[in-house]
Amino acid sequence: MKGPVPPGTNTVNNMENITIAHGSGGKATDQLIRDIFFKYFKNNILDEAGDSAVCDLTGGKIAFTTDSFVVKPVFFPGGDIGKLSICGTVNDIAVTGAIPRYISCGFIIEEGFPVSDLREIVKSMAFWAEKSGVMVVTGDTKVVEKGEADEIFINTSGVGTFPDTGRVLRKRNISRGDKVIISGTIGDHGLAVLSQRKGFEFERSICSDCAPLNGMIASVLEGVDDVSFMRDPTRGGLATTLNEITGPGLGVLLDEVKIPVAREVKSASELLGLDPLYIANEGKILVIVPPGSERRTLDIMRRSEYGENSETIGEITGDDAGKVCIRTRLGVTRIIDMLMTEQLPRIC
Amino acid sequence: MKGPVPPGTNTVNNMENITIAHGSGGKATDQLIRDIFFKYFKNNILDEAGDSAVCDLTGGKIAFTTDSFVVKPVFFPGGDIGKLSICGTVNDIAVTGAIPRYISCGFIIEEGFPVSDLREIVKSMAFWAEKSGVMVVTGDTKVVEKGEADEIFINTSGVGTFPDTGRVLRKRNISRGDKVIISGTIGDHGLAVLSQRKGFEFERSICSDCAPLNGMIASVLEGVDDVSFMRDPTRGGLATTLNEITGPGLGVLLDEVKIPVAREVKSASELLGLDPLYIANEGKILVIVPPGSERRTLDIMRRSEYGENSETIGEITGDDAGKVCIRTRLGVTRIIDMLMTEQLPRIC
Repeated sequence: MKGPVPPGTNTVNNMENITIAHGSGGKATDQLIRDIFFKYFKNNILDEAGDSAVCDLTGGKIAFTTDSFVVKPVFFPGGDIGKLSICGTVNDIAVTGAIPRYISCGFIIEEGFPVSDLREIVKSMAFWAEKSGVMVVTGDTKVVEKGEADEIFINTSGVGTFPDTGRVLRKRNISRGDKVIISGTIGDHGLAVLSQRKGFEFERSICSDCAPLNGMIASVLEGVDDVSFMRDPTRGGLATTLNEITGPGLGVLLDEVKIPVAREVKSASELLGLDPLYIANEGKILVIVPPGSERRTLDIMRRSEYGENSETIGEITGDDAGKVCIRTRLGVTRIIDMLMTEQLPRIC
Repeated sequence: MKGPVPPGTNTVNNMENITIAHGSGGKATDQLIRDIFFKYFKNNILDEAGDSAVCDLTGGKIAFTTDSFVVKPVFFPGGDIGKLSICGTVNDIAVTGAIPRYISCGFIIEEGFPVSDLREIVKSMAFWAEKSGVMVVTGDTKVVEKGEADEIFINTSGVGTFPDTGRVLRKRNISRGDKVIISGTIGDHGLAVLSQRKGFEFERSICSDCAPLNGMIASVLEGVDDVSFMRDPTRGGLATTLNEITGPGLGVLLDEVKIPVAREVKSASELLGLDPLYIANEGKILVIVPPGSERRTLDIMRRSEYGENSETIGEITGDDAGKVCIRTRLGVTRIIDMLMTEQLPRIC
């Protein structure tokens, strides 16, 4: 910061809302960065304030991922866009078998957005980054005029490293007969956001499951040496994620009665005509393991934070067409296809 | 892709505009990704289609950077948002002394955006990624409703590695007496975008300088072993960038007559009341070197693609307050401060 700020000038401290000046790359941007981003994400790498962060790495491979978050509203029961943006990227790295290390964040903010809300979001990001053991090491802020974006969008990208003994989990490791395990109830996140957005009042309020799962994932990988694959069933839900991991010669057969769905999620879904199988989760993983490791995996997951309701919900089949099927409560088997369109836009 | 798409269903091939379905994580998203992103960014890492890309790395350090691009309009003389999003991140990595390797891209697209425009943008990204030697290895797409974003925003994050013999360029290496070299004319990018946006007609059209500079940067680092620092003067222009790199005990003294400004940029700036010192560049680097290496650095830069108009424009001074000053054509010295607000919003 170069010299005193003229009196009456907009600064983050004496103003309430984001202005175009905060995205100018000039003094107001500088102040915003120092007063909010550097303050809460404080670490040696970020403090260098270079165009790129310079990060130490061990090992010859990294996991690299990116996700943009446009959730509406930005605060919802169980989380906010900041928590979501950290946990989502941490989980995407962790499911590949890597240890999440470094996070970047890119903000696109609508002029007029309250600085107090931005501060809460960044504090939430910093809290969840610390909880999941990652460092926010680089960032960027753009501000667009009123009406050119809706409140705030956050991109986080992440880099993870593989432990010396680690394997990269890839789809091609999945085999016929493998068990499909989910770490808990499905549909919570999507319905929590939707009910907040629409002002629905349910008998019991629905909370997002948004959470960092790298701890549970590391425990599973430590205790089970033949995990086939993992993935977090986010946008598009369990059904879409399972459709993505099947392929020629490998299908999935789910057992509907085994799939954990919270009572309030079940009744709200029925009321709204939504299928929990397609509703986004933000704190769940699917773990696919050979049958011999099912018991051990379930035990580890159930003892882990965020995994107490883990259940085996189906298995990998030799279905030629690579379809995902479900055996319903009535004993009928039906195909669970990918949806063409969006059940719930802006859910993450 | 799971089985045939029902007739009449919206697919990227038979439709013209982006719909909410393209951001659903379902079939339409899948098709959009395959028909456009996978097609143009084709590489083995991206083809894995995992939640994170798994990338090989050598060396124990990486450079990691992120940037969101919100430029308006998305096509402008000399470039487009896609070219900008690749070159911007490539340059941010290269100025730290690292070799740009892997790029992620996160798209936030307004419903109704023409798929043909998206295709052009992605082709442009793929072209410039190949030209600059980087791979786009992971991505994400969100679609928001009409009016919730303005056309398209792109975030790119990037990872670079340091050559075995390489040094990390950091601000703290800058010394009193170092020479400040710019790789060519300033202000071209900002004025090109502005004139396209406003429909200004100048005598000679102004073209953006948007370009990948990693080739020139690598040549300089190869040929000059005591480079102090580098940075690309983007948003906020030369003045803002120089203000960011000064600090207590280190100022900058620029020589106005030495700063290259194209004739058309000079006259357009005067007409519009803008100062080229504060206008964004997207294809220029500032190189700071000890005086003994000035000649050699200039020679290398002038022989490099995009560097033919390189000039020494000033030097690092022992100014106590860390100010950036300029000796004007009239022989007067004045302070060049950071701006508080934005001369030109959405310029990158």
